[in-house]
Amino acid sequence: MSPAMSKTRFEAFSDGVFAFAITLLVLGFALPAVQVKTNADLAAKLLGLWPNGLAYALSFMVIGIMWQNHQALFRLVERIDRTTVFWNLLLLGGTAFIPFATSALGQYPSMQASAFLYGVALTETSTCYNLMLAHLIRSNAFHASVTSERIAATRAAYRTGFFAYLFSTLLALAWPLTSFVAYIAVAIYYLIPRGVDDDITAKD
Amino acid sequence: MSPAMSKTRFEAFSDGVFAFAITLLVLGFALPAVQVKTNADLAAKLLGLWPNGLAYALSFMVIGIMWQNHQALFRLVERIDRTTVFWNLLLLGGTAFIPFATSALGQYPSMQASAFLYGVALTETSTCYNLMLAHLIRSNAFHASVTSERIAATRAAYRTGFFAYLFSTLLALAWPLTSFVAYIAVAIYYLIPRGVDDDITAKD
Amino acid sequence: MSPAMSKTRFEAFSDGVFAFAITLLVLGFALPAVQVKTNADLAAKLLGLWPNGLAYALSFMVIGIMWQNHQALFRLVERIDRTTVFWNLLLLGGTAFIPFATSALGQYPSMQASAFLYGVALTETSTCYNLMLAHLIRSNAFHASVTSERIAATRAAYRTGFFAYLFSTLLALAWPLTSFVAYIAVAIYYLIPRGVDDDITAKD
Amino acid sequence: MSPAMSKTRFEAFSDGVFAFAITLLVLGFALPAVQVKTNADLAAKLLGLWPNGLAYALSFMVIGIMWQNHQALFRLVERIDRTTVFWNLLLLGGTAFIPFATSALGQYPSMQASAFLYGVALTETSTCYNLMLAHLIRSNAFHASVTSERIAATRAAYRTGFFAYLFSTLLALAWPLTSFVAYIAVAIYYLIPRGVDDDITAKD
Repeated sequence: MSPAMSKTRFEAFSDGVFAFAITLLVLGFALPAVQVKTNADLAAKLLGLWPNGLAYALSFMVIGIMWQNHQALFRLVERIDRTTVFWNLLLLGGTAFIPFATSALGQYPSMQASAFLYGVALTETSTCYNLMLAHLIRSNAFHASVTSERIAATRAAYRTGFFAYLFSTLLALAWPLTSFVAYIAVAIYYLIPRGVDDDITAKD
Repeated sequence: MSPAMSKTRFEAFSDGVFAFAITLLVLGFALPAVQVKTNADLAAKLLGLWPNGLAYALSFMVIGIMWQNHQALFRLVERIDRTTVFWNLLLLGGTAFIPFATSALGQYPSMQASAFLYGVALTETSTCYNLMLAHLIRSNAFHASVTSERIAATRAAYRTGFFAYLFSTLLALAWPLTSFVAYIAVAIYYLIPRGVDDDITAKD
Repeated sequence: MSPAMSKTRFEAFSDGVFAFAITLLVLGFALPAVQVKTNADLAAKLLGLWPNGLAYALSFMVIGIMWQNHQALFRLVERIDRTTVFWNLLLLGGTAFIPFATSALGQYPSMQASAFLYGVALTETSTCYNLMLAHLIRSNAFHASVTSERIAATRAAYRTGFFAYLFSTLLALAWPLTSFVAYIAVAIYYLIPRGVDDDITAKD
Repeated sequence: MSPAMSKTRFEAFSDGVFAFAITLLVLGFALPAVQVKTNADLAAKLLGLWPNGLAYALSFMVIGIMWQNHQALFRLVERIDRTTVFWNLLLLGGTAFIPFATSALGQYPSMQASAFLYGVALTETSTCYNLMLAHLIRSNAFHASVTSERIAATRAAYRTGFFAYLFSTLLALAWPLTSFVAYIAVAIYYLIPRGVDDDITAKD
């Protein structure tokens, strides 16, 4: 009974929020409010949802990456205290907001307001990841077997992610479509398996 | 096969409801029903959602705290009987109602009816926590290693929470905005890590 | 690798559907489509949701009881084959439909069509429970330690539940409000802890 | 700490998405937007939802089968790397889209556009299953005890599924109602327990 929080329930709750937020993304698609009469009309309406489809794919990658990061990070962690729970809650709060930001982005892909709102959500979660990591390092929460090289590599990766998101978000204030492309580029960069992590774990 | 209920599934089910309820809070945000034409319009509409944002943040903290309490309590519990399941179900019923109360509060932050409804949901869950705890104590459901000091401290904390919520709820009948602030103050008070629990667990 | 299905994932998936269906019940409440202007109006609208509140409480009990039955049953089961998965899927399909049936019942509490639809969902799930139990018995899926008295008691309880729901459903065709009361009565009967199960498990 | 991904969290996250997607299907049903006045009207409206009911039943089977495949496959897998996570995410992305495709199919069962969209979602998930399996085979991710006969049988079954879905999807471009029937036929074929898998596992 020594850790302040059961790691199993901490992870189960987080997995639940990630899985649920990612599934709620589908609410960004809506059938036309008025019943359409012909197949050609319906096809046109469905094809007209392509920005929503792009936003859906983007957010699916984004939340998928966050979840992957979460499990990669907490596999290294031994002890979860209230401060970690606090940052984790702020992180999940940003994640659970993404379905709304996604539907705004999908409906208004070329407006600054929606592209910026979307970026704010991403930057918020990235900030929480960085602050949570800083606390985990400061409070010595990692397993004894975790090397300081590995922690340093994680910290560098988190920082890069933060600046990539912050930069894309600021882009949105001037060129919303460019920032949309930047969000997608960042997500693809992180999602495509490059064998780096696998190599790292193979060395463990 | 001696306990009346599998603790694993009891916790998994509860975690599921907490995680889904907290993620459903996002439905408190809605895009304008009519397609807006300019970025300035969209920005104004999104900024106009700030009371919904505040209600979202509040409820995220509230449900987060409840989930934290739930795991902190049941880590101490050995045996779960049908009466515990009964109170837990009433507790989850109040929790799952919070997304609706939140959207009402976000849309009508300055009306008594919505502020009161919100407080009723919080007070209901707090009542269930107190009655569930009373039953756990009466039925000797705790692990043998749990000290009576710890149980007394939990009981005192639950009681304080109940009165804080009840008082804020009654405030809503006269000053809805003040009660909104009170709900936030109580949530922040409980959420900010103060090291108390960590110290307690460190002594175990 | 001998059982045809991992019991852990079978239970996790089922718990997920139960927890999610019970949380989706909140969608049975809706704020007025048109923005109300005064607190008195809002209070009247919210108070006017009492049939939805009653339907919410009823379905929360109903799904809670189903989940409780599910865990009580599968604690006794050792081996899960494809036929069990098949009946379980039909059972979950009825359960996941309950949020819609609940919103229909809450909006039209005094009409035969909605009260009957609600009963059909309950009767469907109860039928699946009975058929799934019959298959578990036939295929010898229980742990060796489970006595035949216990199985017979479970079977009798399931049958009673089926006839109680079927009877209430048929009532709905003539007297919808009476059937609403009957659904509530059956749910309360099953939910109130009477110590029976605890005694049974104590003897294990 | 040797595998690149905790199998427990990989499965928990996947189970979460399957369970939520299957429960979200209920959003394919909607009460009439305008309050109906008589029971006869309500009954007519509810009975008019039968195509939505059929689409609901179909998708419940489809997602249920996918989940069953997922657990049957990953019971055999020992090591989960980033490429597997990548294909799994694309698979879940298609699965989480099914509730929208289902509501389109339920509302426009006789139009090519909706029947085709539905088929595209099924074919996408089936493609991901095949590519994920190919990667698992190539990267030697299976438990040592898994025979090559078993892997070959799984591969053959996945391929058949892919062609069955692809063929039904192409049908939709000419005869949407026929493709609807074909989707149902394929689902029933896979769902009905035929003892094959049980026999296979019995031999393990």
